[in-house]
Amino acid sequence: MKAIMKAMVYYGENDIRFEERPTPKIIDPADAIIRVTKTTICGTDLGIWKGKNPEIQENAIQTTGQFNGRILGHEGIGIVEEVGSSVKNFKKGDKVIISCVSKCGICENCQKQLYSHCQNHGGWIMGYMIDGTQTEYVRTPFADTSLYLLPEELNEDVAVFLSDVLPTSHEIGVQYGNVKPGDTIAVVGTGPIGMGCLLTAQLYSPEQIIAIDMDDNRLKLARELGATHTINSTREDAIQRVMEITHDRGVDCAMEAVGVEATWNICQNIVKEGGHLANVGVHGKSVNFELNKLWIKNLTITTGLVNTNTTRMLLKTCCSGKLPLERLATHHFKFDEFEKAYDVFKHAAEQNAMKVIIDIT
Amino acid sequence: MKAIMKAMVYYGENDIRFEERPTPKIIDPADAIIRVTKTTICGTDLGIWKGKNPEIQENAIQTTGQFNGRILGHEGIGIVEEVGSSVKNFKKGDKVIISCVSKCGICENCQKQLYSHCQNHGGWIMGYMIDGTQTEYVRTPFADTSLYLLPEELNEDVAVFLSDVLPTSHEIGVQYGNVKPGDTIAVVGTGPIGMGCLLTAQLYSPEQIIAIDMDDNRLKLARELGATHTINSTREDAIQRVMEITHDRGVDCAMEAVGVEATWNICQNIVKEGGHLANVGVHGKSVNFELNKLWIKNLTITTGLVNTNTTRMLLKTCCSGKLPLERLATHHFKFDEFEKAYDVFKHAAEQNAMKVIIDIT
Amino acid sequence: MKAIMKAMVYYGENDIRFEERPTPKIIDPADAIIRVTKTTICGTDLGIWKGKNPEIQENAIQTTGQFNGRILGHEGIGIVEEVGSSVKNFKKGDKVIISCVSKCGICENCQKQLYSHCQNHGGWIMGYMIDGTQTEYVRTPFADTSLYLLPEELNEDVAVFLSDVLPTSHEIGVQYGNVKPGDTIAVVGTGPIGMGCLLTAQLYSPEQIIAIDMDDNRLKLARELGATHTINSTREDAIQRVMEITHDRGVDCAMEAVGVEATWNICQNIVKEGGHLANVGVHGKSVNFELNKLWIKNLTITTGLVNTNTTRMLLKTCCSGKLPLERLATHHFKFDEFEKAYDVFKHAAEQNAMKVIIDIT
Amino acid sequence: MKAIMKAMVYYGENDIRFEERPTPKIIDPADAIIRVTKTTICGTDLGIWKGKNPEIQENAIQTTGQFNGRILGHEGIGIVEEVGSSVKNFKKGDKVIISCVSKCGICENCQKQLYSHCQNHGGWIMGYMIDGTQTEYVRTPFADTSLYLLPEELNEDVAVFLSDVLPTSHEIGVQYGNVKPGDTIAVVGTGPIGMGCLLTAQLYSPEQIIAIDMDDNRLKLARELGATHTINSTREDAIQRVMEITHDRGVDCAMEAVGVEATWNICQNIVKEGGHLANVGVHGKSVNFELNKLWIKNLTITTGLVNTNTTRMLLKTCCSGKLPLERLATHHFKFDEFEKAYDVFKHAAEQNAMKVIIDIT
Repeated sequence: MKAIMKAMVYYGENDIRFEERPTPKIIDPADAIIRVTKTTICGTDLGIWKGKNPEIQENAIQTTGQFNGRILGHEGIGIVEEVGSSVKNFKKGDKVIISCVSKCGICENCQKQLYSHCQNHGGWIMGYMIDGTQTEYVRTPFADTSLYLLPEELNEDVAVFLSDVLPTSHEIGVQYGNVKPGDTIAVVGTGPIGMGCLLTAQLYSPEQIIAIDMDDNRLKLARELGATHTINSTREDAIQRVMEITHDRGVDCAMEAVGVEATWNICQNIVKEGGHLANVGVHGKSVNFELNKLWIKNLTITTGLVNTNTTRMLLKTCCSGKLPLERLATHHFKFDEFEKAYDVFKHAAEQNAMKVIIDIT
Repeated sequence: MKAIMKAMVYYGENDIRFEERPTPKIIDPADAIIRVTKTTICGTDLGIWKGKNPEIQENAIQTTGQFNGRILGHEGIGIVEEVGSSVKNFKKGDKVIISCVSKCGICENCQKQLYSHCQNHGGWIMGYMIDGTQTEYVRTPFADTSLYLLPEELNEDVAVFLSDVLPTSHEIGVQYGNVKPGDTIAVVGTGPIGMGCLLTAQLYSPEQIIAIDMDDNRLKLARELGATHTINSTREDAIQRVMEITHDRGVDCAMEAVGVEATWNICQNIVKEGGHLANVGVHGKSVNFELNKLWIKNLTITTGLVNTNTTRMLLKTCCSGKLPLERLATHHFKFDEFEKAYDVFKHAAEQNAMKVIIDIT
Repeated sequence: MKAIMKAMVYYGENDIRFEERPTPKIIDPADAIIRVTKTTICGTDLGIWKGKNPEIQENAIQTTGQFNGRILGHEGIGIVEEVGSSVKNFKKGDKVIISCVSKCGICENCQKQLYSHCQNHGGWIMGYMIDGTQTEYVRTPFADTSLYLLPEELNEDVAVFLSDVLPTSHEIGVQYGNVKPGDTIAVVGTGPIGMGCLLTAQLYSPEQIIAIDMDDNRLKLARELGATHTINSTREDAIQRVMEITHDRGVDCAMEAVGVEATWNICQNIVKEGGHLANVGVHGKSVNFELNKLWIKNLTITTGLVNTNTTRMLLKTCCSGKLPLERLATHHFKFDEFEKAYDVFKHAAEQNAMKVIIDIT
Repeated sequence: MKAIMKAMVYYGENDIRFEERPTPKIIDPADAIIRVTKTTICGTDLGIWKGKNPEIQENAIQTTGQFNGRILGHEGIGIVEEVGSSVKNFKKGDKVIISCVSKCGICENCQKQLYSHCQNHGGWIMGYMIDGTQTEYVRTPFADTSLYLLPEELNEDVAVFLSDVLPTSHEIGVQYGNVKPGDTIAVVGTGPIGMGCLLTAQLYSPEQIIAIDMDDNRLKLARELGATHTINSTREDAIQRVMEITHDRGVDCAMEAVGVEATWNICQNIVKEGGHLANVGVHGKSVNFELNKLWIKNLTITTGLVNTNTTRMLLKTCCSGKLPLERLATHHFKFDEFEKAYDVFKHAAEQNAMKVIIDIT
């Protein structure tokens, strides 16, 4: 293990740098060090870049008195390089998937499987409160609960999606949205998370999947990946179209996968009485909630950060190869093209990009 | 059965009259005619009186070309006077509880137990889309599914609360709010519905019940009926107090039982990660929903109209006498005092009134 | 509607006759008369033929003083010929699926969706306590809740399977067995019900499906319909093989689809701790339950008769055509070949038969 | 911490000795050493004494080549004396409840909350596969997940019951049995576990609780603790009496709390269609399961060892003091009377004993 590595480091609003950093070391007996072999970029990383998360600096300064940059990234696969003294499930050389959520497994929330709100400095912390995966080596706390053995038969790009995008889509979209066989569902926004919802929803055999977006290329891909209907909301009134498709009944479940008021608004107007609205998008502003119309509709509305408690199960279903998950990987880059990868992902729509994979070895 | 009866009739905004009406007749083979022996007034009736439901006139005119007034009321008990030819479960002379929700039992929603959204002209219709119970005789559609035999051992005032207030509180507040043993819960608003939530929540043994209101008399009653903490939100910052009581954790479940933005706002700010917000209040306006703070909190927010699918179960638990449900009946009136009953209920806070019972025989 | 029709009539043990009977008439306002266009034979019909259900005669004699034979059959599709005065959802000419379960929709059990135990002379009664579908015209009680509109796009053979075999497999096998994405499941017995379990389980994306039977032809079909592993229990130790396949962990769910002790015994020995054993088979004898080994295993064991509360949902998923359900229809017969159909189905294994379809028109 | 302590040690069938042993030491960084202040005896301990668990010796010999006796006991409270280097939640001096189940928190089963089947040498191991609590000092593995802070306001006898008897009753009896408000339930066997079922069931407000036993003293206590009906099965036909009490409907839930065929048999004959049979008893022999009668009844039958995933919640409800849990502690002994305590508990019925508490300090 070399002493110096390259990493994509965040320094502040509009300031990220691909530069050299010292390789990480084991701090806690439950840690592991992973040599990253593939990573990717999340919409959240773009948000950090744009300055949406000043708490990163604030927290660092509050805790340590200084902020020397934060290595980005909470997704990836790799090879275990070293494990702490209390790690039981993994050993040097194991090929692993790195989960975006770290979990102590012992606090009250972890014992409720609400791992995203781990009370012992866990939850989503990698590439946020501690250094992340967009580099060559990463320290993963609580290695026993936060890593997964990568099976030989699994496509490695798909494995990268098991870090975050697939569990988030599945848990916060599909499971919270209670998707059932025979349902009519709507996915509002077909970026990587919306596409993950569209794909993992199919594990439960809905009858109709309506994909809504403003980009025709994405809608075309949505149709190829299983959407039965698509609506381009720049050209059509999405609410009205959904009502036509559903014979004025509305959908059983709407999944919000963007995080702005316009898409929230579509969702709250298309769910049928007794149905579900699963918010997956990260919102920067509050929204108008039409309780005057909706108090009577017996709706269930959910929000949330992924708990990764279905990662293991998704891993099994991904191995079966029934869902064309590998198609989410639209672009591949070499490690030294990391800045280019960010640039392409930043302009995802024009670049016709969904997930970009960075191959480190 | 006399031909003419007295009834409390709604004619339009601020216009209700206690006047003579012809007694109702069986229209459909599934109907029954009930001689009402006790009824009560709901907050919704006050809303109709204030003109909040112009759809009552509009719908009547659209359907029949005219609007001759609507007898109010969707709660009450009585004696079966006559049953239609297809009614199987009831006969003349049976003492019954009249459910506020009519249900065909055969439509798609009824087969999902979403009776409040019955697609065959059921749901909440009595005292709204058809004549109601604030009178001497009422026609109840779908009698087999919409009436319940009143057991001898049940207090008759409590029986009246089984028409609406107890099932609404239990289903839309307590069940949707997923109240469990050991939970800390908050009831925001302690009118009849909030008090019903506070009482029926105790069927599931929460550890702490925080009642929030602006009226000290109501909070005093809340404490007598089981609240472990009370907060007068005119004198204290309710959100801050809840956080103090819960050691900055928030509550497992907040039940909104008023229907205005201020109480909604308390609720959305006091629910702990992974918790439930059950909206029971009837809202006249949309509200601000702080998705920017809440997208990450793994909340479940529910709305709804009562399905009355737990009425039978509540009936059994009410008979046990373990909950002091009869204390909700703060005032009793004779039938010819109906206008006075409305007046007292309209000024419930000053009158220290919770539910008013009108004894017809 | 002609006055006399042909029907397959049960008279007693080993005595069924294809003979003339008077066409049925509306008895109750909730009845409908259906002209049957397709029907099939169930394993239960063979059981009646063999004399397993003497309650048929006993009950008739007790109720009416005599037993004049019972028309068999509780599956089929047809055209509505006539409806009773209280039927709301259907009219003459509608193409319908006849459910094997009749449900009043108003009794306590029906309000709990436990339709199989309808307390108003419903549940499974057709071809059992009242005349059934193996004929030209059948009277269906509670028509509104017991019939389903047959969509144009649905294969008519598959529609016949929606009467019983698919809902039974799905509800009592797959749903009670809690089949989830990523699960490893075993189907013990691959007759029509077992094959229905194997097919409808796929709506929930299990990872591995182990089919166990004594007949190689059936196992071959099982593999074609989605089994990932097959075990012929005449040649291999089924328990040992399952343990090998599952690396000594056992299965998440075992479905018993035969109804004898040997298959029950396989099931109770292959379920992993925390798993499910869903008994679907009809048992003629009690079984040995190894509670001494199983008290500690946190198992859930279920039994049951179909409630048909997922028929509507299955109907939607069947229309999608994703599951090769039509392959269950291995043989077709004309109406006047009904006795031959019985003969083939009686020797299903030798005849390589799964479900036999009788086309009446 | 002294080097030598007294302990109740099992050596083989009918051979337990109260003798000196070396005090235990930390072996794993996740361990803690607890100074036991109160413990109790479980029916399981009697079973070990009687020789029902030869696996204790077998396993020791297989692992270490020898068997030097095993300190009994898996229940108790105490003071933390020392913690291993990786223990985060506890420190020397903390007053704690010792859970009967040890859980790593990281294996597949622990991540499913199936802690009783922890795959990293956890589950029920104390006083069984490792030395237990019937002594002055005990080593508890996985201290962070297996200990609970004992609140000041909690009665210490009740705290002892949180080690095993209350979570077992609640999880395997009441929760697996799906006890709901308004239910009619039966508890078959009113020893400590049955009485725990009867008590914790009341957290969910069942309408009727039928207690069945052969001992009048226990039935008298059952009535005092909340049973609405009692049946002495030596004098009455328990099945027939339950049917009379339930108007031939049967119970919603039967809990088997003995572990012999006679009580299992009562249970399988008294559960209503759609109901639950929760087996809590430890069975030494297989039983006859009347699938021929029960295949049709839509029953759910469960088995299991406690997961202790509701211990924290029970702790909160116990503090409220609403249930008279302290009454389970019928006898108290000093530490040097341990053999007498065993003698009394062995003859519990004659001694009118429920749980015996041994006060160590």
